[in-house]
Amino acid sequence: MMIIMRTDATPEQIAAVVKRVEMAGLRTHLSEGEERTVIGAIGVIGTGEPVNREQFLYMQGVDRVMPISRPYKLASREFRPENSVFPLNGVRVGGDEIVIIAGPCSVESRSQLIEIAHAVREAGAHALRGGAFKPRTSPYAFQGLGEDGLKMLAEAREVTGLPVVTEVMSIEQISMIMEYADVLQIGARNMQNYNLLHAVGASQHPVLLKRGMSATVDELLMAAEYILFNGNKRVMLCERGIRTFETATRNTTDINAIPVLKTLTHLPVILDPSHSTGHWGYVTAVARAGIAAGADGLIVEVHSNPSEAYSDGGQSLKPERFAEMVTQVRAIAQAVGRSLAPVHEPEVGRVA
Amino acid sequence: MMIIMRTDATPEQIAAVVKRVEMAGLRTHLSEGEERTVIGAIGVIGTGEPVNREQFLYMQGVDRVMPISRPYKLASREFRPENSVFPLNGVRVGGDEIVIIAGPCSVESRSQLIEIAHAVREAGAHALRGGAFKPRTSPYAFQGLGEDGLKMLAEAREVTGLPVVTEVMSIEQISMIMEYADVLQIGARNMQNYNLLHAVGASQHPVLLKRGMSATVDELLMAAEYILFNGNKRVMLCERGIRTFETATRNTTDINAIPVLKTLTHLPVILDPSHSTGHWGYVTAVARAGIAAGADGLIVEVHSNPSEAYSDGGQSLKPERFAEMVTQVRAIAQAVGRSLAPVHEPEVGRVA
Amino acid sequence: MMIIMRTDATPEQIAAVVKRVEMAGLRTHLSEGEERTVIGAIGVIGTGEPVNREQFLYMQGVDRVMPISRPYKLASREFRPENSVFPLNGVRVGGDEIVIIAGPCSVESRSQLIEIAHAVREAGAHALRGGAFKPRTSPYAFQGLGEDGLKMLAEAREVTGLPVVTEVMSIEQISMIMEYADVLQIGARNMQNYNLLHAVGASQHPVLLKRGMSATVDELLMAAEYILFNGNKRVMLCERGIRTFETATRNTTDINAIPVLKTLTHLPVILDPSHSTGHWGYVTAVARAGIAAGADGLIVEVHSNPSEAYSDGGQSLKPERFAEMVTQVRAIAQAVGRSLAPVHEPEVGRVA
Amino acid sequence: MMIIMRTDATPEQIAAVVKRVEMAGLRTHLSEGEERTVIGAIGVIGTGEPVNREQFLYMQGVDRVMPISRPYKLASREFRPENSVFPLNGVRVGGDEIVIIAGPCSVESRSQLIEIAHAVREAGAHALRGGAFKPRTSPYAFQGLGEDGLKMLAEAREVTGLPVVTEVMSIEQISMIMEYADVLQIGARNMQNYNLLHAVGASQHPVLLKRGMSATVDELLMAAEYILFNGNKRVMLCERGIRTFETATRNTTDINAIPVLKTLTHLPVILDPSHSTGHWGYVTAVARAGIAAGADGLIVEVHSNPSEAYSDGGQSLKPERFAEMVTQVRAIAQAVGRSLAPVHEPEVGRVA
Repeated sequence: MMIIMRTDATPEQIAAVVKRVEMAGLRTHLSEGEERTVIGAIGVIGTGEPVNREQFLYMQGVDRVMPISRPYKLASREFRPENSVFPLNGVRVGGDEIVIIAGPCSVESRSQLIEIAHAVREAGAHALRGGAFKPRTSPYAFQGLGEDGLKMLAEAREVTGLPVVTEVMSIEQISMIMEYADVLQIGARNMQNYNLLHAVGASQHPVLLKRGMSATVDELLMAAEYILFNGNKRVMLCERGIRTFETATRNTTDINAIPVLKTLTHLPVILDPSHSTGHWGYVTAVARAGIAAGADGLIVEVHSNPSEAYSDGGQSLKPERFAEMVTQVRAIAQAVGRSLAPVHEPEVGRVA
Repeated sequence: MMIIMRTDATPEQIAAVVKRVEMAGLRTHLSEGEERTVIGAIGVIGTGEPVNREQFLYMQGVDRVMPISRPYKLASREFRPENSVFPLNGVRVGGDEIVIIAGPCSVESRSQLIEIAHAVREAGAHALRGGAFKPRTSPYAFQGLGEDGLKMLAEAREVTGLPVVTEVMSIEQISMIMEYADVLQIGARNMQNYNLLHAVGASQHPVLLKRGMSATVDELLMAAEYILFNGNKRVMLCERGIRTFETATRNTTDINAIPVLKTLTHLPVILDPSHSTGHWGYVTAVARAGIAAGADGLIVEVHSNPSEAYSDGGQSLKPERFAEMVTQVRAIAQAVGRSLAPVHEPEVGRVA
Repeated sequence: MMIIMRTDATPEQIAAVVKRVEMAGLRTHLSEGEERTVIGAIGVIGTGEPVNREQFLYMQGVDRVMPISRPYKLASREFRPENSVFPLNGVRVGGDEIVIIAGPCSVESRSQLIEIAHAVREAGAHALRGGAFKPRTSPYAFQGLGEDGLKMLAEAREVTGLPVVTEVMSIEQISMIMEYADVLQIGARNMQNYNLLHAVGASQHPVLLKRGMSATVDELLMAAEYILFNGNKRVMLCERGIRTFETATRNTTDINAIPVLKTLTHLPVILDPSHSTGHWGYVTAVARAGIAAGADGLIVEVHSNPSEAYSDGGQSLKPERFAEMVTQVRAIAQAVGRSLAPVHEPEVGRVA
Repeated sequence: MMIIMRTDATPEQIAAVVKRVEMAGLRTHLSEGEERTVIGAIGVIGTGEPVNREQFLYMQGVDRVMPISRPYKLASREFRPENSVFPLNGVRVGGDEIVIIAGPCSVESRSQLIEIAHAVREAGAHALRGGAFKPRTSPYAFQGLGEDGLKMLAEAREVTGLPVVTEVMSIEQISMIMEYADVLQIGARNMQNYNLLHAVGASQHPVLLKRGMSATVDELLMAAEYILFNGNKRVMLCERGIRTFETATRNTTDINAIPVLKTLTHLPVILDPSHSTGHWGYVTAVARAGIAAGADGLIVEVHSNPSEAYSDGGQSLKPERFAEMVTQVRAIAQAVGRSLAPVHEPEVGRVA
């Protein structure tokens, strides 16, 4: 932490800040410039004292206080330089191969789901997404089929061999969803639901963690830290667009976040071009961009009949358009020295 | 819903959209302009069919689709023209009187809490805030005292007569917190935690609902709708700053939201100038602005020794500064034809 | 400037950065923490060398580079602790009195302008605003009456005694506008039109500088620095709302910016509640909030017949509503220990 | 325009709005829903009357007013379905070939510029960028070499054959810059400097128009409309990142804007990954993403010695990294069925 004093701070004010920092168990270091003094407060790692940098804002003569340490540890590439890689249906996610997760926004019926699952598998998807519990802005909107939806997902996995990714919205649902699904998805609206993060961390089940719509990259990594902190190392991060002033698209895909995250963390990074654009017409272009920027995979909404979808129809690809997207993404993957893993034969059982 | 066709849409494309709208059980209405055709799709209230406006984005010749109805009903002033008013320690919140809720960010110890509770009561606060369960961006940060903290809050109420407002972070905590607290606070990070909203709605306990840091006014009202939908009518809305590009303050106080909310909804609107600025030096000015803009109350962080606070020290007022703030706010309240309710004598028991 | 090294930076990398900093003519200061080293680079004031902090991003082992100095000097309160106060029609702007500037968005006709000028003067305004050159997003929209509009403004000043505030959009217009107007307004879209800033600085004419719609407070102060740098000390800053994700209002009034600016700078701060809300229905509430937060004045759009206005009708107040606003603002001014200056008798000539 | 009435609007209020719309010369069309009435106001193209949609906000019973028409015409793909293509050094910009513009942020010296110009040409660039007039946030920062810089650019063109792209900051500079440069660049800060847009439109010189840092896609297209409106058809649009809450990068690359713009307009779209990320370490990844998303070209900052650059050193690529970027971008171009044009032999003279 650096405490930047005002240009008119008195020696007494500077001394008082130094004293306080040292009382907090930190070492200090003074830089006396011609304009102002900066006090470095150097943390002693491992001490549990709650040293809050904001508290120094109260002291006379203080202008600003700036953090120095990045707030996450386990998630950082400085902590673990090599990529975290973990298997999903034969794909080594986070390695050279690109993973593609696809399926409907919501599970709507058994036949709808099975049809889509077959279609995405044929087109080249490695895992099936589908929501059984749906976070909806309106209490009047379709809220998902619940456990019935989970059973349909499990059946779709049975017949296609595709592992299942589905959202968990509350702690009570975790054990039930773990029975049916291979990857627990934390939605953007719950990225800072810390009790839920702790619980999925404790579950030791693979997690797909979506970035909150106004979360910074650092906050996304702090949310991942909650899961890692509980010993669960299989965390995929998902960029799904952020909220900005631009209204031409539902969200703004933060494409910068992909190389930034690949620099800061060892965890795999997935892009969701469906939510990050909100319009099927832009999904393929942004999917290509994501892989070109270095993403490790995609999660895409696909629906056989988007005009009839219960949710997110406008941003879902039809199966034939999805197949075309996979073809285009494969070309991009090759251009960046990566590849799309072939889809394995149907197999019974979970992801390792 | 209005479906705006492209300028080059063909009559066949227009006919196809009309047909689809009518199949969805809606009536249509065509406006044929010189440039383009607009198709109005008029909803039949009460039909449960999931008509998603996005689905029309898929049809050929469609340019854009715009919603017409506001998505909330129970929260709207069109539904209920007069203000919702409910009592809190003798103050009729949402009426002519201003309510002031104050206390520490976190409950840290029995003595700290009792001291602050007495101080804020003497300064003119009508209710006590304090967190026992704390949402923190870092898993390494102080997470709150839990039930021990709740017991301290209950004791502080006992000795000061101030009703207690405290945050609930997950469904499991609701029944425990209801035993100790008078108002359940939903934090900004949980504003779209729909399972939690349903549960606090079902609790029938008064709720202080904070706006998410990137939630629109409409989304805040939809979150309130989840609570109202469960029959719980005692909901206070809280503006606590939104996330923008500006970094001079922690958040940007959306002062516009106060007259906007007072226009759109009958629910009381509270301002939190501590979080909305993030710096004690700006809290009093923004508190005055909030009451001047028409807010029904304030929730303010106060700490006897902010430099030692476990959390949010930089934005907490010292008791003497808080007392000065109350004095200034009282003058503003009078200038807008309102008043600060006198603080009642200590009384045992809950808010009616 | 502080250069924060990576946790895995080598001693050689640290030495290389130190060497580079010193080659740039700065002194260095090392803080060696347990986790990482921070290199302070202490500027020598007055050296003209272009030391760009970004350049250190290129060096191996560097994590981040943070500025320490605030980038403006003449505009800062550290440079000049007491308020800058300058007279406008008898009001000492920046002192205890509140200044109110009002008038139509655009000058549309002689009769319209004279009528509105009389109305706002009677209601208590101290200066007349009105655009003769209009920045419009569409080339097809009304672009202002140009010099004819300026002549009408001068005539309105003649008959009402109100000094005139009007926008200058390009360097070529400055000398012409100076003939007719008392204050040159720089619009939000030109806040970073540096050639224009230099030129209005050189003009030595009073300036009302509007904040750009995505400008930070620091950038607004840097824009003011351009004007001050040219020796022109009569600069009023104007908060007019920033662009955020919220669409319920045209812009988001950054009410925090008012106490922030009053802390950082000695220049007067004016609020424009018309643009910052974009809807007449919210103007009065936000005007009250601005004065409550510490603003030194208001600039408000008024139109006798807003439904017929050529521009910004939706955010203009009718004269009777403006009069009511002034009454309410007067009460707020008193509540914060300030006052609305009485309007002087018509007088010929310019502001001192 | 659609005027949405309140649910409690009376028949008299509806009639009054209809009457007003018709008085404004528009035809009306009523949609009477069960909840509320919507009044369509259908424009008669070509009438010059300033019908401002905001004006209806003033009428009783009106809830909201929504635009229907897109505000730009000449820039829209509905107006001109096929791509606008124009030649730049043999590349048909906007066609199948990708154009790469590269060079230093600022022209610093003759030798610096010639060295970089040769390097980028060898690496595969088709045009040379370099600023002679620099918009800087600080009046104390290097402001560019002015006409001396232009002369150096012209000399660099002479020896390398690369056409020159350089920024014009004010109307006075246009004729001088036209003598030396092939493309006039309008910077982000001047995107809504309408006088300048009119003037570069009138110049009939090719223009590279950068998106303002908080401009919407629609506003960018309106700025282009100003240029097209003056008969100048050679406009390239440039995405250069927008301002959001994220601070991990200098700006947020709005990658969505690329397919959105390619859908809405016939004009070529260029990406500036240097400004849109602000860090050399992310430039190549985002350059690849831009071409993958469908951009027609790139404009990239290159400096032989970024640590010594007068401006933007942190985001400049060294020549060898730029060469590597071109190689990677070429692979992406092929993957999306496009190509990088070979660089022509040095030739004297301007772009056709």
